[in-house]
Amino acid sequence: MRVLSSELNDHTGKTVHIQGWLHKKRLLGGLTFINIRDRGGLVQVVLSDKQEVEKLRGLQIGTVLAVDGKVKAEPRAPGGAELHEAKLEVLVPVEAEPPIEIDKPLSHKPDNLDTLFDNRVIGLRNLQEQTIFKVQAKVLEAAREYFIQNGFTEMNTPKLLAEATEGGAEVFKLDYFGKEATLAQSAQFYKQMMVGVFERVFETNPTYRAEPSATTRHMTEYITIDAEMGFVKFEELLTFASGFLNHIVDRVWEAYGDDLKKWNAQKPVLTKDFPRLTMKEVHELYSKASDTDTTAEEDLRPEEERWISEYAKKNLGSEAVFVTEWPAASMKFYHRKNADNPKLADRSDLLFRGIEIATIPMRENRYDALVDQLKTIAKGDPEHPGFKYYLQAFKYGLPEHGGFGWGLERTVEKLVGLNNVKEATLFPRDINRLTP
Amino acid sequence: MRVLSSELNDHTGKTVHIQGWLHKKRLLGGLTFINIRDRGGLVQVVLSDKQEVEKLRGLQIGTVLAVDGKVKAEPRAPGGAELHEAKLEVLVPVEAEPPIEIDKPLSHKPDNLDTLFDNRVIGLRNLQEQTIFKVQAKVLEAAREYFIQNGFTEMNTPKLLAEATEGGAEVFKLDYFGKEATLAQSAQFYKQMMVGVFERVFETNPTYRAEPSATTRHMTEYITIDAEMGFVKFEELLTFASGFLNHIVDRVWEAYGDDLKKWNAQKPVLTKDFPRLTMKEVHELYSKASDTDTTAEEDLRPEEERWISEYAKKNLGSEAVFVTEWPAASMKFYHRKNADNPKLADRSDLLFRGIEIATIPMRENRYDALVDQLKTIAKGDPEHPGFKYYLQAFKYGLPEHGGFGWGLERTVEKLVGLNNVKEATLFPRDINRLTP
Repeated sequence: MRVLSSELNDHTGKTVHIQGWLHKKRLLGGLTFINIRDRGGLVQVVLSDKQEVEKLRGLQIGTVLAVDGKVKAEPRAPGGAELHEAKLEVLVPVEAEPPIEIDKPLSHKPDNLDTLFDNRVIGLRNLQEQTIFKVQAKVLEAAREYFIQNGFTEMNTPKLLAEATEGGAEVFKLDYFGKEATLAQSAQFYKQMMVGVFERVFETNPTYRAEPSATTRHMTEYITIDAEMGFVKFEELLTFASGFLNHIVDRVWEAYGDDLKKWNAQKPVLTKDFPRLTMKEVHELYSKASDTDTTAEEDLRPEEERWISEYAKKNLGSEAVFVTEWPAASMKFYHRKNADNPKLADRSDLLFRGIEIATIPMRENRYDALVDQLKTIAKGDPEHPGFKYYLQAFKYGLPEHGGFGWGLERTVEKLVGLNNVKEATLFPRDINRLTP
Repeated sequence: MRVLSSELNDHTGKTVHIQGWLHKKRLLGGLTFINIRDRGGLVQVVLSDKQEVEKLRGLQIGTVLAVDGKVKAEPRAPGGAELHEAKLEVLVPVEAEPPIEIDKPLSHKPDNLDTLFDNRVIGLRNLQEQTIFKVQAKVLEAAREYFIQNGFTEMNTPKLLAEATEGGAEVFKLDYFGKEATLAQSAQFYKQMMVGVFERVFETNPTYRAEPSATTRHMTEYITIDAEMGFVKFEELLTFASGFLNHIVDRVWEAYGDDLKKWNAQKPVLTKDFPRLTMKEVHELYSKASDTDTTAEEDLRPEEERWISEYAKKNLGSEAVFVTEWPAASMKFYHRKNADNPKLADRSDLLFRGIEIATIPMRENRYDALVDQLKTIAKGDPEHPGFKYYLQAFKYGLPEHGGFGWGLERTVEKLVGLNNVKEATLFPRDINRLTP
């Protein structure tokens, strides 16, 4: 029976069988110490028998081994125990030296990111690197848990579409049996249609944008956590989003708080319900504190997003903050204008540690008003196949609703404390990169 | 505070506020009865006040309503309670008659499927139709639960690839900033590479096949539940797959056993570890029982898959059965030949209620043997970008491993008792269909 490195402490004094990768090898005081990596972490193995040491001659890090050895408590070893009187069996010999050292922290400096990604397949064997993607998996698990607790139903919607419905040049086109198809830029229309079915729906799904530049914030393929709620007021939606991030953060730190220390990651300070600032307030605060005047602008500058996040942390006790009251002039056709002030849209952006991680708008749910906005804002034809099924959902009754598109990789980037969304992506894709 | 239809029984004698869609309306003994649908199900509301009935004049099914009323136990009403002394508020009026009746079971006859899919947005408001997709969501939830309990890590791998690596004509190509990219036909290479990182990985992900025909078993886009396990023997892998389906079936029937009665769906009879038959045995049994001779064939015929499933149910006490010992002649380059008989591949197909729902092979994990198979079987170049990163994982040590690609929609189709995989897909895609 195979025992995992993480289970070693339960077997002190006994002989156990472990399997894993040769992760490190060193000589100390005439003894050979090796570390074996398995999915539980690392085991330190002491090789006192020369015959056993000899089995590793010419073999490199990555060699797959089975080891039988006696478990001895050892406070200096990873996990507090090590293996003695070890017998090795080489399961898969590795004779080539790996292209990078995997036992040391890998460089995440901007200039080294291409090397990091080119060597991803091997670099991910580094334990600190693995933490990023364990956190990513936990964010998804916690997100789904929160949705299901709150009565949401998971859905799977198509990414192959007949038409680009949200406009813009950033759409990938493909040949579909001689016709043209596009890749979904979001699950927007589908999640709204599904409000008419299950009221509350979610999907964790790939999203495609033909983003023509390589930035630290954008990729051509990424995961969006999409959610949509019916019978909801704007305030309730923001409260839901606050609870959602709090839940994720709690779950991540419960599971990986220790591993995250290696990244010097601090658990985010969050209020139960995140503070709200209007865009006007953000512009005024930022303009007063800086040499610039942004008060006439209709969007947030990236430096403003960073500044206001710091401001909220210091003055409002939260590293997440909502920016509300967006100008209606720049809204999408499916957004809702504010009932009291039609120059504003009922939209909020959620800023977290300096970056927008979610856009949270209410939708126009009245059929006639929506058709009107489709024509005037998007210059769209209601009879077009890209719109007509979508509009059906409204024609036959949709309640007030809103939701969010939440960036998985951006969230992980900020939880771990990285500087580029691609560092939080297993195999990133941008204009310059389609491999590995 | 809004109360859901499913919570009505907790409020007998009290006045509650509900919100939902007008689902049905009828006159009985001078009274108007309406059913309201919300995400909990249906509420029956008795309208005795003419003023209230008047509010619904000219309004159709789908109208969004808020209702205040007193809860009274009523065994004949859905959920065992109904609302009396009801006051209505019309939240969203619907004046157009829906294109289909949503209170009656929708036709799933082969000739009516196009109508079913063209009206999907409204048809999904039918409660029996919703059961299919609640089951789908539960299959995913149960699958992830089982993976996480067994030490798997979730991953997200790209669907935009530089090259079609698995060969075949069934690949979608797209323009990627002037270069050509392809859509992933599977997560095959990535999940194997990730065995070197986390040992056990899973992903529930869209899969793209440019399938040039419209059949009851194929779509161009569908969800695969991908899993891969390191340090595993073939027998353990089949045992894991047996436990996986058992867990899913138990969870689905716990949650939706009652709803599934409307589909006349029976809980599948499954052994703990599914029976195994070799392909040779299947051919012999089928040839003996039918007028055909398939004993020289190297694949299973669809009618043979159906027949052997019936056979296993009757004679082996299981509606799921493994077919093992596939000919090496038709194997993929990354499959493993059987060590004792190199004419066979270490592969099993899982048949469930007449259809293959998963292919479960062991992989060739020895670098030299894999490079050799890549050249001889796939005629591939190990230096090609489509292969070189994949091969790195092996060069620097991968243990024995295997896994499966499991069809989500096929599983749901067979659990519910449908006849076409598209019926178990919210918005199906095939050569003829890209909308809604």
